[in-house]
Amino acid sequence: MHFELINHIKQVVSLTGNDVVLIKRLFQFTEIKKNDYFLQEGQICRQVAFVKKGIFRYFINEDGEEKTFSFSSENRFMSNYESFIPQTASFQSIQALENSEILTISHSDLEQFYLKIDKGERFGRIAIEQIFIQLLQDLKSFYTDNEQQRYEKFIAKYPDIQQRIPQYHIASYVGVKPQSLSRIRKRIIRYSIY
Amino acid sequence: MHFELINHIKQVVSLTGNDVVLIKRLFQFTEIKKNDYFLQEGQICRQVAFVKKGIFRYFINEDGEEKTFSFSSENRFMSNYESFIPQTASFQSIQALENSEILTISHSDLEQFYLKIDKGERFGRIAIEQIFIQLLQDLKSFYTDNEQQRYEKFIAKYPDIQQRIPQYHIASYVGVKPQSLSRIRKRIIRYSIY
Repeated sequence: MHFELINHIKQVVSLTGNDVVLIKRLFQFTEIKKNDYFLQEGQICRQVAFVKKGIFRYFINEDGEEKTFSFSSENRFMSNYESFIPQTASFQSIQALENSEILTISHSDLEQFYLKIDKGERFGRIAIEQIFIQLLQDLKSFYTDNEQQRYEKFIAKYPDIQQRIPQYHIASYVGVKPQSLSRIRKRIIRYSIY
Repeated sequence: MHFELINHIKQVVSLTGNDVVLIKRLFQFTEIKKNDYFLQEGQICRQVAFVKKGIFRYFINEDGEEKTFSFSSENRFMSNYESFIPQTASFQSIQALENSEILTISHSDLEQFYLKIDKGERFGRIAIEQIFIQLLQDLKSFYTDNEQQRYEKFIAKYPDIQQRIPQYHIASYVGVKPQSLSRIRKRIIRYSIY
């Protein structure tokens, strides 16, 4: 049940047998049905989740239009840290795009993780650094890359999910209308055969 | 020499006598003259600094125009973490606006801090979380607040530096021309006397 999570953490820090026992106790298995929400705008994000199976999209509501700006899929952590860390209301929503399985940890249990796992703080510090850098790179891409570059980065970053989700979510992420996304894809295919 | 830094860290985690000795060894005292740079665009940010004395502004160069987007003053950490953490070239510059005194720690010495200070990792994790949340709030403010709100947030966030730096840097931070800043200030003063 916790195999992928333990493995994921072990790629960053070593874990003792006791650590593994505690991690299994702290992370709760939960299923989320397709189209249901992990987090809705206005709620406080109470958990960090590790995605075992499924895909989630992060979006904001801008004047009635949903703008997708990120995805989480297998073997990634998922949360809205901006809401989770200070425990304030979220401005974004996180929705399952497939029937999904996640392992969740609450705010107070994450504090236990930090306090009781030998290298828990080290893992947390490195994980949040990576999320921070990723966010900065995403933001830069959003303001400096053109549509084709954004689509190519989407493919590079999420190679596994392109075929599994509706194209209009990808178009929203790239920042174009769905028909423009088809044009970008055809252009890339045309160039890649030479 | 290291009094304010030790105090600042102790507000977050407890430190042993040995920790204090090590921190004094890891953080180097450096002076930076007014208008000199802590970091220039294109360089790799090699250090995190704690500001003992002085003010610094963070800016990017946008088509030849310098856009100021943040400040650091006394008792704050200063770095471009986007460049420092992965050790890649910086897109931003950090410049002293007064003759300044800082305590700097290198990338490898910060790793020593994390490994050898009892609660070093905990301090690092909490510090980076705070920086992360601050960045997200700054970004949101930039896209949702109007000029007056941004000016009021500047005053709330940096109450100590308003009188110490040229007004055109504040205008750049707020996102207006210097003459518009005067208008905003007059409006605020007019309202605050009632």
